[in-house]
Amino acid sequence: MLDGVTDPPNLNGDEQAAWRSFVEMHHLLHRHLGTHLQREFGLSDSDFEILVNLSEAPGGRMRAFELGQATQWEKSRVSHHLSRMEKRGLVRRDSTDARYPDVVLTAAGLAAIKGSAPANAARVRELFVDVLGPERLAALRHMSNDVIATIEDHMKQESR
Amino acid sequence: MLDGVTDPPNLNGDEQAAWRSFVEMHHLLHRHLGTHLQREFGLSDSDFEILVNLSEAPGGRMRAFELGQATQWEKSRVSHHLSRMEKRGLVRRDSTDARYPDVVLTAAGLAAIKGSAPANAARVRELFVDVLGPERLAALRHMSNDVIATIEDHMKQESR
Repeated sequence: MLDGVTDPPNLNGDEQAAWRSFVEMHHLLHRHLGTHLQREFGLSDSDFEILVNLSEAPGGRMRAFELGQATQWEKSRVSHHLSRMEKRGLVRRDSTDARYPDVVLTAAGLAAIKGSAPANAARVRELFVDVLGPERLAALRHMSNDVIATIEDHMKQESR
Repeated sequence: MLDGVTDPPNLNGDEQAAWRSFVEMHHLLHRHLGTHLQREFGLSDSDFEILVNLSEAPGGRMRAFELGQATQWEKSRVSHHLSRMEKRGLVRRDSTDARYPDVVLTAAGLAAIKGSAPANAARVRELFVDVLGPERLAALRHMSNDVIATIEDHMKQESR
């Protein structure tokens, strides 16, 4: 029904196909990794993202707004998700300053990320790193960084 | 805190960096396109995905389960999202067979996708297609299809 609307001059067939393959690749990777994290470790992809960020921070500790920057989630999503993780004992809020509490990885949270990260990394290797091989992986890294830089430029211009 | 846990032998520094750049590229593209669809056309990325699928189907009509396959959303998410879009007049359910209603693009839905798709495609061109250029875009399409094929193989084996 949309012939001539989404196609030329905007995107030709090859461009459209490349874009859709890229989106599909990401979607399948994300879903496949998420399914296994949930099934094997009882972690959602959002849990995992928070745990990875905290586990890489000095002392396993970050401000909530830093987690928001790292995940690029909306503030309300960060807050709600941290509350759910706190109830499950994976993180705790450390309220030296009640207005701006730190978020701290608990022993249970550290155990959860240590238990799940190797299996997740092994899947990333098997389904992505080894399928592409080192040369194509390096090329993709450059492509990604070029696109990231372009979008960041746009975002800067828009926020002026 | 996780040195030696997520790193070798699972992923070395270059592999990790490439993976993270790829995920970040997708994330920024998705968010940037979504922000503009919402701001300029009042459409969420989920609305847009449903509208694109319907607009490309014969007669602007699909079964709900076909939309589920196309979007790879859970059945409940498809159902809830279609209810919200129906209330806004973008789609309607055509219940010749009440148990398996077709989902049909309305005139308003067609206008919404016709209005928004060209601007979205122009952004995909500007931030992705033109940044990569034709050779790298073709290489990325091949990479994507290789990864997709590998995951689909895994999914087949797991469902046996």
